[in-house]
Amino acid sequence: MSKVTVFGAGAWGSTMAQVLCDAGNDVLLWGRNQEVVDEINSSHTNAKYLAHHTLPTELKATSDLDEAFAFSQSYVLAIPSSQLRATLKEWKPRFSEGCLVVSTLKGIEISTQLRMTEVIVEILGPHRVAMITGPNLADELVLRQPAGAVAAATTQATSEEVRALFRTPYYRVYTSVDLLGCELAGAIKNVIALAVGISIGMGFGENTQAMLITRGLNEVARLCAAHGADPLSAAGLAGMGDLVATCGSPLSRNRTFGELLGKTGSMEQAVAHGAKTVEGVSSSGAIVEIAHRVGVEVPVIESVADIVNGSLTPAQALQRLMEITTQAENFIR
Amino acid sequence: MSKVTVFGAGAWGSTMAQVLCDAGNDVLLWGRNQEVVDEINSSHTNAKYLAHHTLPTELKATSDLDEAFAFSQSYVLAIPSSQLRATLKEWKPRFSEGCLVVSTLKGIEISTQLRMTEVIVEILGPHRVAMITGPNLADELVLRQPAGAVAAATTQATSEEVRALFRTPYYRVYTSVDLLGCELAGAIKNVIALAVGISIGMGFGENTQAMLITRGLNEVARLCAAHGADPLSAAGLAGMGDLVATCGSPLSRNRTFGELLGKTGSMEQAVAHGAKTVEGVSSSGAIVEIAHRVGVEVPVIESVADIVNGSLTPAQALQRLMEITTQAENFIR
Repeated sequence: MSKVTVFGAGAWGSTMAQVLCDAGNDVLLWGRNQEVVDEINSSHTNAKYLAHHTLPTELKATSDLDEAFAFSQSYVLAIPSSQLRATLKEWKPRFSEGCLVVSTLKGIEISTQLRMTEVIVEILGPHRVAMITGPNLADELVLRQPAGAVAAATTQATSEEVRALFRTPYYRVYTSVDLLGCELAGAIKNVIALAVGISIGMGFGENTQAMLITRGLNEVARLCAAHGADPLSAAGLAGMGDLVATCGSPLSRNRTFGELLGKTGSMEQAVAHGAKTVEGVSSSGAIVEIAHRVGVEVPVIESVADIVNGSLTPAQALQRLMEITTQAENFIR
Repeated sequence: MSKVTVFGAGAWGSTMAQVLCDAGNDVLLWGRNQEVVDEINSSHTNAKYLAHHTLPTELKATSDLDEAFAFSQSYVLAIPSSQLRATLKEWKPRFSEGCLVVSTLKGIEISTQLRMTEVIVEILGPHRVAMITGPNLADELVLRQPAGAVAAATTQATSEEVRALFRTPYYRVYTSVDLLGCELAGAIKNVIALAVGISIGMGFGENTQAMLITRGLNEVARLCAAHGADPLSAAGLAGMGDLVATCGSPLSRNRTFGELLGKTGSMEQAVAHGAKTVEGVSSSGAIVEIAHRVGVEVPVIESVADIVNGSLTPAQALQRLMEITTQAENFIR
């Protein structure tokens, strides 16, 4: 039995804590909100984020940072991506040498174009850093529906350590030493989900969605290859898997925002219709920059960026996409 | 302007004929049914298969085989897979040397375990043979919704010739010289769509579906590699693309059959509930044999085969799948 601390008591952090309990670990969940913490300890529920779901009775929660860091040497981060840098700066002295830091976050830090584990390493220094990722919608995983995931790190030993922590009968965890590729794929999928949503909003069906998903992942694969990552990570659970689950879920905020964008025809109109901006919107421009820096063409991602920045309508962007000369369908080159 | 003959005036053949017209070709559509042929020529509709849709007025149809074969040297086959061998045997003397034969068929001939273009070559001899494949549901393509496809042949010249025939502003055709990989992927996708349907019938959501799709395509990729085909074809439009469209469509017969199978718990029950057997059911056993012949493990496909042959219930098959030890997530090895 390992001891693990999960930071972040929202829907995702609570779900990860439950998986870790089910996998046989001794788990402490840290949350900022004292009421949420008290409720988890007293009634084993987290009504604010998980409605009536009952969490494992052995799961304990705390709002005390000293207690949380003293509890274990394995830290699972489930705090909001946007707060990662500021939070880690504040917590930095608490991370001891040799601890394991597992990110469950996806996305790019817009101002620096850094991935989440890059932010972690930049602030904390060379700790053992890993991520767990894949097609894992919290509302299904918390019900213990069968799911797959990837434990990615830069060494096989660390990825196996993370797999061992998380593996349960309903959660199949594969290992990967391609942290860079898995993280890039996870960051970009929201932009492709936006593209898929836009096509749905324009009235198109499965053919158009499947084309955008497949060609979008082709762009992810080429971007991975240009960064020295494994392009096949794009075709795995962190890439294709996560994207398919995101695009299939009517609850996906990126897909839903895209639908409104496709239906109304512009960002201005979508926002006027009450859409709240989503991760794919803010990161599309940054990902185009990342791609162009390494000389990779990303027409699907670029279409989303141009719709989002107002330089093209969805109809114009689609037309431009369809006019590109088709070549050999190579996944990598 | 090229001349093209399409054989088969069902929903798919009529749709392919329309794409070829839109691409600027002079197209003759051959159909067995004189009434359908007359209706296409007189009112430009095919009510039996395409409801009220109006076909291009320049599209002509015939039921005369002499006329069909004399019309062009480019033959697009859209007849039922199950009738391919018998039909080609009958038509064999009509195929002249140097003609182009484009298959639009998917699946495996169960008795011989041959792919469709293998059947074509076995009967007709070494003609120039190609296939066009991808996420192309007929009911969306006939409405000219944006779609992507792959023109696959064993030579670049032939695949480019097929791309040139089909390419229109709404139909993006990529080339591939991996005919074997594209055809294997297209044949296996119905089995994986069955697996996805079964999981939906069992009450599971996007996480489980995405795991089955991703790990199922991993099996397709390994099977391609073992046959000397390009494993990346599994991650392209012929593999991932086609599978995502099939699984996303509530009209997919394989997915729907799988749902009933997952809900009722056995083939016997599903058939008793009126389900008509589908392509994935008949081919799952053959594909397991093809895989084992080259020493490739295909646990997702094997689960479907075992459910279909009655040796496991869906719940038992899923449990077996979840118990397999997870290793590194390699797409190919």
